[in-house]
Amino acid sequence: LTTPPAPARRGPGRPADGGDRRTAIVAAARAEFAAKGYAAASVRGIAREAGVDPALVHHYFGTKEQVFVAAMELPFDPAERLPEVLAGDPAQLGERLVRLFVSIWDEPDFRAPMLGLLRSAMTGEQGATMLREFVGGALLGRVAAALGDVDPLRVQAAAAQMVGVVLLRHVVRLEPIASASQEDLVALVAPVVQRHLLG
Amino acid sequence: LTTPPAPARRGPGRPADGGDRRTAIVAAARAEFAAKGYAAASVRGIAREAGVDPALVHHYFGTKEQVFVAAMELPFDPAERLPEVLAGDPAQLGERLVRLFVSIWDEPDFRAPMLGLLRSAMTGEQGATMLREFVGGALLGRVAAALGDVDPLRVQAAAAQMVGVVLLRHVVRLEPIASASQEDLVALVAPVVQRHLLG
Repeated sequence: LTTPPAPARRGPGRPADGGDRRTAIVAAARAEFAAKGYAAASVRGIAREAGVDPALVHHYFGTKEQVFVAAMELPFDPAERLPEVLAGDPAQLGERLVRLFVSIWDEPDFRAPMLGLLRSAMTGEQGATMLREFVGGALLGRVAAALGDVDPLRVQAAAAQMVGVVLLRHVVRLEPIASASQEDLVALVAPVVQRHLLG
Repeated sequence: LTTPPAPARRGPGRPADGGDRRTAIVAAARAEFAAKGYAAASVRGIAREAGVDPALVHHYFGTKEQVFVAAMELPFDPAERLPEVLAGDPAQLGERLVRLFVSIWDEPDFRAPMLGLLRSAMTGEQGATMLREFVGGALLGRVAAALGDVDPLRVQAAAAQMVGVVLLRHVVRLEPIASASQEDLVALVAPVVQRHLLG
């Protein structure tokens, strides 16, 4: 077992408090995900790296996916936000998905870490693997599971429509899409997302 | 006037040959686009930087856009490839656009410099401006011009669908979209592109 890293703000001799252990777990999770990728990383390995019991990791964060969300500082927990969107009337599923997607990307606190993840995916295999596993599992996997026997290619085509919109809006910043209202974007692409998913 | 850079392979006293001047113009163009962005860069400025006459830049490359394509080492000249795609039967426009887009992105020689441009757009304002002006002008501007009075937001929604597909296919490399055939992708998104453009 490795020794837990001692955060700077802890004085000598003082035991690690909850905040310190939480910080240590997040730091360990970042290191573990960066070194092994999402799929190979484990709560057990993160706990070992942080010098705490795996039960404490579960206590603070829940599942591995939620540790990932915390480690990446994503202010969006798919396990929390997606189920309500997926549970409503299927006839408006595209609309609810596009509204959620566009509105969270309009929040700088979500956008910055997600763009960081995308940048790392563009510069190295490790980053691409992490993004792929997160998007494929936590996001698209949930959508596919909620829809039953949908063709995964159709789920990805729907995702592509939404991903392309935020890329042109927030990275390329092309007008008029960069300044369009959220409702204009919903009107523009919700029918496409609906058609891809439930055709 | 600045002195033209002397390429290493030119011996002392030998006059610059066509290859040397071409190389000097490309180097000057890269510097000019990087320093000023696409819109503010000019053939005159590039010629000055390369120590040649502007007419020589036009002679070797044609327009500023074509100098840009050469400087970015894009093995795709929109001025050459887009007009034929835009000129055919409007009922199959979506299909032709998606087929062109997907097939050029499947070429590593096109993908590498384009991903480089996208990376630079994600890391700095200068790169974003360059990509925005190139995509907006050379690509989407041509599509919009060919279609007459189409809503630019609809052209961008069509572009978003295609951009999202290549991002999931070549950056995130999500399966099954990463391994899908070009024809599967055409079948999947051409109707959407068609609908956005000619709804």
